[in-house]
Amino acid sequence: MNEQKTLFRPPYLGCAYYPEDWDESEIPYDISMMKKAGINCARIAEFAWHKMEPAPGKFEFGWLHHVVNQLGENGIAVVLGTPSATPPRWLSKIYPDVMQVNANGIPMSHGGRRHCCSNNPHYVEYSLRIAEAMAKEFADDPYVIGWQIDNEIYSFDGCFCPECCGRFAEYLREKYGDIETLNARWNLNLFSQAYDCFEDVAQPKNAWHNPHLQLDWKTFQNDSHIHFVHKQAEVLHRYVKVPVGTDTMPFNGMDYGKLNEKLDVIQFNHYNDPQNHSNVVLWFDYLRTILPHPFWNTETQTCWNGSVAIGQSIKPEGFCRVNSFMPLALGAEANMYWIWRTHWAGHELTHGSVLDASGRPMHIFGEVQDTAEMIKKSAEFINGTRVKTRVAFHYDSINWNMMLTQPVVGGMNNDRINEFYRPLLDSGLRPDVIFSEKDVSGYDLIFSPLMMTMEKGGLSDAMKKWVKDGGTWVVGPMTDIRNIDGARYQHKPFGMLEELTGAKWLYGIPDAIGAVKTAWTDGDDFRGNLWYDIFEPGSGAALVTVKEGHSAINGKACVLDCTVGKGHVIILGTVPSHDDLMKIISRACAYAKVPCGTTEGAVLASPRVGEAGEGVIVMEYSGSNPGVYHFEGTMTDILTGKSYTDKAELAPYEILVLKK
Amino acid sequence: MNEQKTLFRPPYLGCAYYPEDWDESEIPYDISMMKKAGINCARIAEFAWHKMEPAPGKFEFGWLHHVVNQLGENGIAVVLGTPSATPPRWLSKIYPDVMQVNANGIPMSHGGRRHCCSNNPHYVEYSLRIAEAMAKEFADDPYVIGWQIDNEIYSFDGCFCPECCGRFAEYLREKYGDIETLNARWNLNLFSQAYDCFEDVAQPKNAWHNPHLQLDWKTFQNDSHIHFVHKQAEVLHRYVKVPVGTDTMPFNGMDYGKLNEKLDVIQFNHYNDPQNHSNVVLWFDYLRTILPHPFWNTETQTCWNGSVAIGQSIKPEGFCRVNSFMPLALGAEANMYWIWRTHWAGHELTHGSVLDASGRPMHIFGEVQDTAEMIKKSAEFINGTRVKTRVAFHYDSINWNMMLTQPVVGGMNNDRINEFYRPLLDSGLRPDVIFSEKDVSGYDLIFSPLMMTMEKGGLSDAMKKWVKDGGTWVVGPMTDIRNIDGARYQHKPFGMLEELTGAKWLYGIPDAIGAVKTAWTDGDDFRGNLWYDIFEPGSGAALVTVKEGHSAINGKACVLDCTVGKGHVIILGTVPSHDDLMKIISRACAYAKVPCGTTEGAVLASPRVGEAGEGVIVMEYSGSNPGVYHFEGTMTDILTGKSYTDKAELAPYEILVLKK
Amino acid sequence: MNEQKTLFRPPYLGCAYYPEDWDESEIPYDISMMKKAGINCARIAEFAWHKMEPAPGKFEFGWLHHVVNQLGENGIAVVLGTPSATPPRWLSKIYPDVMQVNANGIPMSHGGRRHCCSNNPHYVEYSLRIAEAMAKEFADDPYVIGWQIDNEIYSFDGCFCPECCGRFAEYLREKYGDIETLNARWNLNLFSQAYDCFEDVAQPKNAWHNPHLQLDWKTFQNDSHIHFVHKQAEVLHRYVKVPVGTDTMPFNGMDYGKLNEKLDVIQFNHYNDPQNHSNVVLWFDYLRTILPHPFWNTETQTCWNGSVAIGQSIKPEGFCRVNSFMPLALGAEANMYWIWRTHWAGHELTHGSVLDASGRPMHIFGEVQDTAEMIKKSAEFINGTRVKTRVAFHYDSINWNMMLTQPVVGGMNNDRINEFYRPLLDSGLRPDVIFSEKDVSGYDLIFSPLMMTMEKGGLSDAMKKWVKDGGTWVVGPMTDIRNIDGARYQHKPFGMLEELTGAKWLYGIPDAIGAVKTAWTDGDDFRGNLWYDIFEPGSGAALVTVKEGHSAINGKACVLDCTVGKGHVIILGTVPSHDDLMKIISRACAYAKVPCGTTEGAVLASPRVGEAGEGVIVMEYSGSNPGVYHFEGTMTDILTGKSYTDKAELAPYEILVLKK
Repeated sequence: MNEQKTLFRPPYLGCAYYPEDWDESEIPYDISMMKKAGINCARIAEFAWHKMEPAPGKFEFGWLHHVVNQLGENGIAVVLGTPSATPPRWLSKIYPDVMQVNANGIPMSHGGRRHCCSNNPHYVEYSLRIAEAMAKEFADDPYVIGWQIDNEIYSFDGCFCPECCGRFAEYLREKYGDIETLNARWNLNLFSQAYDCFEDVAQPKNAWHNPHLQLDWKTFQNDSHIHFVHKQAEVLHRYVKVPVGTDTMPFNGMDYGKLNEKLDVIQFNHYNDPQNHSNVVLWFDYLRTILPHPFWNTETQTCWNGSVAIGQSIKPEGFCRVNSFMPLALGAEANMYWIWRTHWAGHELTHGSVLDASGRPMHIFGEVQDTAEMIKKSAEFINGTRVKTRVAFHYDSINWNMMLTQPVVGGMNNDRINEFYRPLLDSGLRPDVIFSEKDVSGYDLIFSPLMMTMEKGGLSDAMKKWVKDGGTWVVGPMTDIRNIDGARYQHKPFGMLEELTGAKWLYGIPDAIGAVKTAWTDGDDFRGNLWYDIFEPGSGAALVTVKEGHSAINGKACVLDCTVGKGHVIILGTVPSHDDLMKIISRACAYAKVPCGTTEGAVLASPRVGEAGEGVIVMEYSGSNPGVYHFEGTMTDILTGKSYTDKAELAPYEILVLKK
Repeated sequence: MNEQKTLFRPPYLGCAYYPEDWDESEIPYDISMMKKAGINCARIAEFAWHKMEPAPGKFEFGWLHHVVNQLGENGIAVVLGTPSATPPRWLSKIYPDVMQVNANGIPMSHGGRRHCCSNNPHYVEYSLRIAEAMAKEFADDPYVIGWQIDNEIYSFDGCFCPECCGRFAEYLREKYGDIETLNARWNLNLFSQAYDCFEDVAQPKNAWHNPHLQLDWKTFQNDSHIHFVHKQAEVLHRYVKVPVGTDTMPFNGMDYGKLNEKLDVIQFNHYNDPQNHSNVVLWFDYLRTILPHPFWNTETQTCWNGSVAIGQSIKPEGFCRVNSFMPLALGAEANMYWIWRTHWAGHELTHGSVLDASGRPMHIFGEVQDTAEMIKKSAEFINGTRVKTRVAFHYDSINWNMMLTQPVVGGMNNDRINEFYRPLLDSGLRPDVIFSEKDVSGYDLIFSPLMMTMEKGGLSDAMKKWVKDGGTWVVGPMTDIRNIDGARYQHKPFGMLEELTGAKWLYGIPDAIGAVKTAWTDGDDFRGNLWYDIFEPGSGAALVTVKEGHSAINGKACVLDCTVGKGHVIILGTVPSHDDLMKIISRACAYAKVPCGTTEGAVLASPRVGEAGEGVIVMEYSGSNPGVYHFEGTMTDILTGKSYTDKAELAPYEILVLKK
Repeated sequence: MNEQKTLFRPPYLGCAYYPEDWDESEIPYDISMMKKAGINCARIAEFAWHKMEPAPGKFEFGWLHHVVNQLGENGIAVVLGTPSATPPRWLSKIYPDVMQVNANGIPMSHGGRRHCCSNNPHYVEYSLRIAEAMAKEFADDPYVIGWQIDNEIYSFDGCFCPECCGRFAEYLREKYGDIETLNARWNLNLFSQAYDCFEDVAQPKNAWHNPHLQLDWKTFQNDSHIHFVHKQAEVLHRYVKVPVGTDTMPFNGMDYGKLNEKLDVIQFNHYNDPQNHSNVVLWFDYLRTILPHPFWNTETQTCWNGSVAIGQSIKPEGFCRVNSFMPLALGAEANMYWIWRTHWAGHELTHGSVLDASGRPMHIFGEVQDTAEMIKKSAEFINGTRVKTRVAFHYDSINWNMMLTQPVVGGMNNDRINEFYRPLLDSGLRPDVIFSEKDVSGYDLIFSPLMMTMEKGGLSDAMKKWVKDGGTWVVGPMTDIRNIDGARYQHKPFGMLEELTGAKWLYGIPDAIGAVKTAWTDGDDFRGNLWYDIFEPGSGAALVTVKEGHSAINGKACVLDCTVGKGHVIILGTVPSHDDLMKIISRACAYAKVPCGTTEGAVLASPRVGEAGEGVIVMEYSGSNPGVYHFEGTMTDILTGKSYTDKAELAPYEILVLKK
């Protein structure tokens, strides 16, 4: 992709805008208010298929040019969306087979969005045609700075239409080659499940299905969406020179690495609350690592979500500012609101926005203006620096899906990732969140919880080498316990952990009620949860041992510290409490010589370096308590010009852009 | 309707009786026990289609004449029900298409009731035929004092059979004229939903649908039932001269005004508990206003509900009496129990009744006898007076359905109507509950909460005039915020409230957690809930202002008191606590010069006037605490002959029929 | 059945073993570990249809002979399962109609188990063919000590395939003879439900159905499974001489008496926890009474259940031992674990076992070895004695299903059986749990709660005679209140209780909130729950009377003690508290001269007598507190050789095999 020179410069403070839902006469008012708010970018057209192609093959782009021109002429950059998430009624009327079908065989109806099947040839054909028509039309438009393909593409249970059923067989054939291999790898002598041919394999519906089928089904369904996006990307890339992406939702098992392989910019939507705001940090730490281009936070709310009913209460003052600036701190070049002006009718007529449906500014209008002002002041620093770190944290969609389809023990689930991440954040660390294939050689300290299989992308071998070369690895729980199919190992509990460390696993023990009591070898109580991998205590240095539970396990170890080559492996056999995990992180940081404890309270610190200098963006994100950031030397806050030495105290929701 | 002179006089204490389920030899025993209980009316035949027409076109009414005659000859009046709620198996065997179909395309089975589609031509044809046969047969029967059409006609999600789908398109065509109008009014450029023709419009199933479609679907489905009832009414009216009605259930979005337009008497079923007994008062205050004829409470339990299991515990002694007499106090001329004698087998074989299935009297038999005695003593006063009031309270099915399909904010729902009504009751008021089209000129004080649209039936204009002429209007929250389609106004937050009062709305704020703090302008704390409309404080006299929440709203007003012409408008921008609403009611009563605070405790007072004199029926309905009723002068209790001056103290569940 | 002389002797400590899921080379290791654990029996082949018949009619038993031989040669007896629970994919491919169909018409998919319909002729034909092939192949195998048909055969809502619908009509025709009889017995004039022919009768789906239809549907569905099992039994009995059974699950409305009529040994699976371990005692007391052959506990967990996630926490040490030995104490000759070694992949890859999937022993391995040792020591006593008692407790599947389909009052349900049983256990009683047809003449004391109908198997008459002859009967609540169809009696509340005792029932009262207050006639408070049958106090000696509730019931009785002939009938009109039921049991034991209070704490005592002498097996089953067993004289514990006089004190989870 060869980026075209545009009239606009990041960072962008943008919004989703739906001029097709309003009378044309409203546009000048909306634009004047955007300028007043400090908005410099608008995402448009993503749901406007019917307006652009009111009848098959009859394209009407005049109205859209008019909108793009008005925006661009007023200094507002445009991101165009291809409208495949909302196919018009005439498409499903001509080809009723385009509709997704649920596990009970019932097709979806027109009237919402994302009701068509990404595998359906008619839907694909017409989606590519409108995308191509748009691309041709706007390829050289100087006001268009980027493209978004579709919207929040994903499905929960997947589509069970005949096309999907057929293609699933083809997917399995390609993956397994012959049916005997599939039977063997899925252990299908069990329950007499074995198949004679790929066409016979059931889709996961109307029965108690095995987890391997379910894992492949999820991968297949996600891949179907990925292929659909890639086909659109190919079409767009034939014409346009600005970055192309697709806006996705928080972790859901979609393989964002694979999805973005043929795209230019990560686009991401989130609607988190103060209550779960730290999860957003995790996602941004992930998005940053996928593509070289700074990512775009394409959607977030200004104040609340709402379809026909608002599900939230008013948020604390300052949340809008911190939420808007956070992506920029962590590697984005854009933050965009959904939605500019609440719909006057239809599905989401109570959603938070910048302007109320009546056209009046919402109560957070001032916070939007403040954000625009901060962005303006820090633009040069943000554009000219990148986040830099020596710490990584593993996440991979295959493990997300494996955990979904076989969580091992009740209460274990993918939300636990956030529990593991939070203490890192509270230790002042700024990890890159990376998937299996990512090169680990640049890191000194890596955390790998819930990585049920390590057989993807050569991760197992990569980590062995990396540890022996001197890396510090905090691994587990629930890591390395399944092969790539989600099967257990037949003669060992782990894929390679025992072999790498010499540790000897004895038993696995579920415990959600605190029946197992444990302590640090130095005597302090330790609190684990849900699951215990029990090791022979002599295998590696025992860090935590069992005091009570069952005579077979008492005295054995559940957390080990093993020296391996020049490196260290800390094996977590359980889900530690927040405080116990803080202690483990501190120990690991000492091995890796990574500074630990640079923050106090809910403070996020994002060290950045680049042609624009060196510094750190710091923010208090709880909104309820002050926090502290410790550093060496003196830095100046670009926003206020104020200087800080050795430490900066932050008021609730305070943001500093500190430059050396 | 020209009422025939009958052998019987109201008020009626009646019961549902199913002689078809018992051996004929049981009838004399049942009748002897009815007489012992004081029952003077029986509702029969509503589910007996198969017994009256055991094969298509083969009518057998001999057994029914025999029952009617035995009842009538024993002084028990008869209400006959048309049996369309329970079509026989032979009908669905000849025409399988009569069955309702759910959103997944699955037809209902025979074996329960109300399984046929009100739009199905075969079902309609056969329903009218049996109704006509009955009407001819019993038109001149002197023992039959009224007719009931069908039973509890209503459906939740509606029927999705081909007939309904086709007729929904026709309904939309008739309402919107052309498809462009529908597209525009529903804002269907959003999500590319626009349709080319009415036949294309989806029914609300298997997708995330817009609230305007859902609102029209509900109206269409309810109208289908209404048309079905009207067709039966037309047939009956051709033959019978006694009142015809249809027995309906508590508020559910059915338009009872429209439904009863072609009927003569309101019939109503309720099964409330001591816990929610005050809601019943609201319903009776509504039923009274719809038709001139005193309404019939066609069903209530003597003690508990039960199908295959009783879902309730024994009720406090006295509840049966108060529950039985309450409709008569509030404008009815009949209270009837469901059921006379518990079914010995079948669907509802644990339901509370007057006689147990074994034929033995239930434990409340004495309370039924007491009720009969009270009715006898007060009959002349009840028949010769009507409830009289200067206060009204708005309710309209369109707003019920709008709230169902777009509740605006989580926690908001139609149950809130009861929360608004209860303080009126606790203030001693006796409002008429009226729908949009009702003339308001006779009232001095009107409450209109949750009237999301005021565009129905010219209500908006009527209220403007009424207020300017001197009315006192307590309006909101969630009133006047949507047009007739459930859409928001594009350039203003309310349809006419700002224009009428000069108030200036700034923001809408959701808050279910108490983040927003408010106070009366006199300094006392005020407790709102769920939602705040925030107004420029100077616009109208601020009654309640925001103390804390967000700097944009602090100091602004959420309850206003506006003088308009000769009248007053108190705008409620939030859901007030019970006590705060009591204060507002008191203020409004002072404006309207309506007596306030005439009752203490859970006391219901129903002032009545007519040819039989003037007085008031008073009852304590909590059953747990004594209460007081204040009045001027001296009145005598018709039940006991005891005299009261200035006030009457009531024991729990005590009932007084006071006459001047 | 003529039992073949085998190489093995009970008692058996066995396990389910799935060699088809592992490489053949694993077998020797598994067998060596079985021997180490003390396992002397393996259940195999139950799910291995596809491995035994990989293509239609192509049988392959070589691998299975190899496994059986290896096991047998190592002293491990084999139980073979017919594999009908897991038909191969090729069967449903040839005959798609074999699949069960749910109430929405959706067939089940391949990929789990028990997805075929027991009535489907193709499924039946192929199931019988594989069973016959196995039977021929292994009829004379000396290592095979028994056969299991299918696995946990049962269905919740049942199958709605065309075959089932047709056969349901035939079932009804056979039961009722003519449709008028069905209409009359089900009271189908109600709601115009009456049918013209059996083919018209609805299956219980997609409507609100009557409880009589639902009861017959459940019976029909269960009978379908029973017939299917009987057909397989017939085939097996043609060839094999060792006992044949089918392994069933805890009480679920399946008629285990009928099911096992054509079988030789009861097989039973349970997975209870410490929390509900006393329910297991109830089931074993039932299993023991059905067939003369000692029963087999074919499945229990060693430590926890788990499909893709373990749902439990680690269990207290000792639970495995007590849980393993309990069936042997109560009449079994085998206890078997599910599963020997956790599956390395597939549906249940987290289930507790003896060996982990990795091949390593689980933490309970030592408890399994202890159990084997105890069994060895007590084998002669267990084999040579039988449980002996004078007390019985009624349970019948028809009443289970009646309670499911019409629980009478909210909160009443079949779990209440355990509440009634527990105080018997706590009184040291060892009741036989028997169904309606069982001869009662050998018992002195019988409990019959929740026996809604007593019309099955002549129970009503049998009990009348038995009581008059001197029996002591504790009866109710909810007993004798319905006829065999689940209908109420039209002229009396009970079938025969009033007539038998002279008691006079007045009212039935629901009360889950404690509104009704009651007391023993001696003045102590009594606590009932959910329901009160209220009797004329003079009818029989009132034991408990109502103090408060409603004037109609105050002073009336709800528990009666009636002398009848030489016997006693204690009528329970309510659900007594545990302690109040203990008092009633004590009173009844005194009448019957049955020792009461022989145990303290959670102690189970199973008196046994036979050719091997006389004694009692005693165990503490709470695991948390010590207990005591009182007796007369001196006995010696076979396990330790220790002697006890008059009483034995037991530590938590301690087991004694005491012999006189």
